Amino acid sequence: MNTHKIILLAHGSSDKHWRDTFEALAEPTLNAISNSSIAYMELAEPSLDTVIHEGIAEGVRDFRVVPLFLAAGRHLRKDVPAMIEALEKSTGASINLSPPIGESPLLGQAIKEVVELHLGHETEK
Amino acid sequence: MNTHKIILLAHGSSDKHWRDTFEALAEPTLNAISNSSIAYMELAEPSLDTVIHEGIAEGVRDFRVVPLFLAAGRHLRKDVPAMIEALEKSTGASINLSPPIGESPLLGQAIKEVVELHLGHETEK
Repeated sequence: MNTHKIILLAHGSSDKHWRDTFEALAEPTLNAISNSSIAYMELAEPSLDTVIHEGIAEGVRDFRVVPLFLAAGRHLRKDVPAMIEALEKSTGASINLSPPIGESPLLGQAIKEVVELHLGHETEK
Repeated sequence: MNTHKIILLAHGSSDKHWRDTFEALAEPTLNAISNSSIAYMELAEPSLDTVIHEGIAEGVRDFRVVPLFLAAGRHLRKDVPAMIEALEKSTGASINLSPPIGESPLLGQAIKEVVELHLGHETEK
């Protein structure tokens, strides 16, 4: 039984195309890391609440939430910490919040590569 | 004289920490690609309007806007195309909108690497 779980937390949207993009973004991580899931802060399922409760039912006691956000705005500074505090209180689990993925220099490098690819395709036209 | 310009378009925020994160994300691209700039859709300067007008004053006639967004929501489907259409009409420049960076598989790979780094640091504790 795995007592740890990684949760990739996206904002959430009622728009399927938006969710599909986030599911594609999460896929390499979910494939590489056992006991990892995507969850949505609002407007879509599975919610953070759902994924935490499912994890606890499976015996998970330690969660790490990695925000699929480029930067920390109000949601990551206030709303998500408040949700986590409430879930820790109600479940007794430990839930750690990582910085948003956009704070890693690896993202800036990936952005540079994406832009260079766009430019490469343009000159091929 | 360079007649092309790349604009990395971020949402924008009145929060300096938020803008600093986006400026760090943009930095590798701005260093690698000549005649590239960051611009904000709202709430921060330089705005898209400012960067387009500065480019035109320098002789740029062809702009490519690359959204620093993980997925396309209402802003990228409606607001930004409307801003671009108005700017093309008022200036006569050509302004192309790329898909958001999050639609590239390179971002999903970078996210996996970021999460693996978080886990590596955790096990070192």
